[in-house]
Amino acid sequence: MSPRFDFTIHATDGRARTGAIAMRRGTIRTPAFMPVGTAATVKAVKPADVRASGADILLGNTYHLMLRPGAERVHRLGGLHGFMGWDRPILTDSGGYQVMSLSDLTKRSEDGVEFKSHLDGSRHLLSPERSMEIQRLLGSDIVMAFDELVPTTATRDVQARAMERSMRWAKRSRDGFDSGGAHAEGAALFGIQQGALDQVLRRESADALKDIGFDGYAIGGLAVGEGQEAMFGVLDYAPGQLDAARPRYLMGVGKPDDIVGAVERGVDMFDCVLPTRSGRTGQAFTRTGPINIRNARFAEDTGPLDPECPCPSCTGWSRAYIHHLVRAGEILGAMLMTEHNLWFYQRLMADLRAAIAAGSLSMFANDFRTRYSSRG
Amino acid sequence: MSPRFDFTIHATDGRARTGAIAMRRGTIRTPAFMPVGTAATVKAVKPADVRASGADILLGNTYHLMLRPGAERVHRLGGLHGFMGWDRPILTDSGGYQVMSLSDLTKRSEDGVEFKSHLDGSRHLLSPERSMEIQRLLGSDIVMAFDELVPTTATRDVQARAMERSMRWAKRSRDGFDSGGAHAEGAALFGIQQGALDQVLRRESADALKDIGFDGYAIGGLAVGEGQEAMFGVLDYAPGQLDAARPRYLMGVGKPDDIVGAVERGVDMFDCVLPTRSGRTGQAFTRTGPINIRNARFAEDTGPLDPECPCPSCTGWSRAYIHHLVRAGEILGAMLMTEHNLWFYQRLMADLRAAIAAGSLSMFANDFRTRYSSRG
Repeated sequence: MSPRFDFTIHATDGRARTGAIAMRRGTIRTPAFMPVGTAATVKAVKPADVRASGADILLGNTYHLMLRPGAERVHRLGGLHGFMGWDRPILTDSGGYQVMSLSDLTKRSEDGVEFKSHLDGSRHLLSPERSMEIQRLLGSDIVMAFDELVPTTATRDVQARAMERSMRWAKRSRDGFDSGGAHAEGAALFGIQQGALDQVLRRESADALKDIGFDGYAIGGLAVGEGQEAMFGVLDYAPGQLDAARPRYLMGVGKPDDIVGAVERGVDMFDCVLPTRSGRTGQAFTRTGPINIRNARFAEDTGPLDPECPCPSCTGWSRAYIHHLVRAGEILGAMLMTEHNLWFYQRLMADLRAAIAAGSLSMFANDFRTRYSSRG
Repeated sequence: MSPRFDFTIHATDGRARTGAIAMRRGTIRTPAFMPVGTAATVKAVKPADVRASGADILLGNTYHLMLRPGAERVHRLGGLHGFMGWDRPILTDSGGYQVMSLSDLTKRSEDGVEFKSHLDGSRHLLSPERSMEIQRLLGSDIVMAFDELVPTTATRDVQARAMERSMRWAKRSRDGFDSGGAHAEGAALFGIQQGALDQVLRRESADALKDIGFDGYAIGGLAVGEGQEAMFGVLDYAPGQLDAARPRYLMGVGKPDDIVGAVERGVDMFDCVLPTRSGRTGQAFTRTGPINIRNARFAEDTGPLDPECPCPSCTGWSRAYIHHLVRAGEILGAMLMTEHNLWFYQRLMADLRAAIAAGSLSMFANDFRTRYSSRG
């Protein structure tokens, strides 16, 4: 019988860990980066090419998929894996973040969030129970608890009440997940720590989640504009508040240097739209920092996007060609840029895993920071 | 030594022929369909996937490439083949058609055409000599003579004078090509028959071209709104006016049923934006006719775009998934649709070649017409 969710730590280096999560649909090497497949597609890249970049798992967005094509429809069509042609693990978020940031006229209550679709204005409800149901209908492998988001600029009192509600919703998510049958089908459930930038609230949240019990724990409420220094400030203690035997997932992070610093602080999983979104706007990642391929200095540059990269884009085409494609608005430009960026992120994760296994993470991280300029 | 341009007819069936053109960069099986790679890319498909669809040769657009990234720049970067990563033959048009249909403020004279770029308003000149120079700078394998276009609705007198000027320009194209060195580098030159829908003008044009002498002959001035019946009316005699030992190329054609009828009438080569453009607007070709994948009836259709198609899109994803992608404006939708359409066109050409070789073309063509409804 295949494993449901077995997390094994193979090596540690300081607070960092490297290991693997064995699941029914495949193994996830950690630290792991999950490309974002918002609307049942990693934008501009075929699933086989996403896999070839080194991705073990994708992220799908509950909010987008419940609105289009709809969770019940995806279920009737055999689930998200078959629908989009990706047979490895998929993590779905709870929809909470998007519903509170993208939709109109949200009405929050203890029950959940009522909202109008940003696509057609239709009315919907998201609650812990409905989020668990949708994620099960999608066929998610790692289901995220439904939580409440408040701005980082909110008062401590507002933060505390949102965290406390999120913990009540975490329990309802656990109950909804358990009664819905997703567990029996082999899915796992992650809780999400909240508490903004407050160490005491983070501790209370971590304890509440541990009492409920989850397969893994996410660190929520970061990467929302607080800046890297503040984020690292939280990551100096937050991972240590969570069960060390379970994976720790930092949601929505991030820039390459964010990831390196977070791995040093004990984070095991990441997701971010940056490699894919940047690929469509002309930003290519390299080990010395991002470059904007639209820049005129690349018009006759016959070198690859990144001289150190073995990806199909870098071995097949020049900066000059991709500069031309992106300037001309050609779809192939978005395709080649995105594929390169996915390879960049996955190579970074592979290097981080190797450095942890070799006990040389701080040397790798310092070398990375010396070379990498996020100014581009 | 590799062949410069050897056209061999392997079999005939009525007026139709099947054979091969051997060139320095590869062999072109005829009847051939050339996907259009306007701006140094077949939109939304990587070159290796264009090749996998069965394409032996691409078409590049002189007008677009001279404006962006510029012919001299492409030359400095090693030519169009290396720039875009396609190592097989490329045919380039002369720029004449686009300059007279896309650019602003054109000023025609016996010398050539002055125009303003539709991109940035910059001023340019295209003449037979400059067109030959640009096509050589691009590294074209099959160079097209520069000719003059007039609307099909123009009077016979206007048509006659445009055809006669085109024949003088054909001679200047021949001279420019020969003195420019492209011939020595292994390129071939095609002349273009004009004369609109007039059999006498077409005859005069064919004779003028034959006196000059070309590697192949295009039938120009069709597929510009005259309708299939009028086009077939010209194709009933025009191919027979051209040298039977040379390939005949019908420019800008066309719909699948146009191609079948033109092959029956002795045409060997085609190009058209239809499979690629349709792929970006939601139209997929099938042997029973085109379908609009945006249609609500495909929302839960688990079958492939075309039940008879072995392409990666049809073996990998459902109509329901591609319907979702196209409705959501996802790039992957354009990618999968375009790749399918390219396979559809190349499979049609392969079937036409096989039918001619087997002496069963009229049976194949009648069967095709019985099943195919262009209404979609």
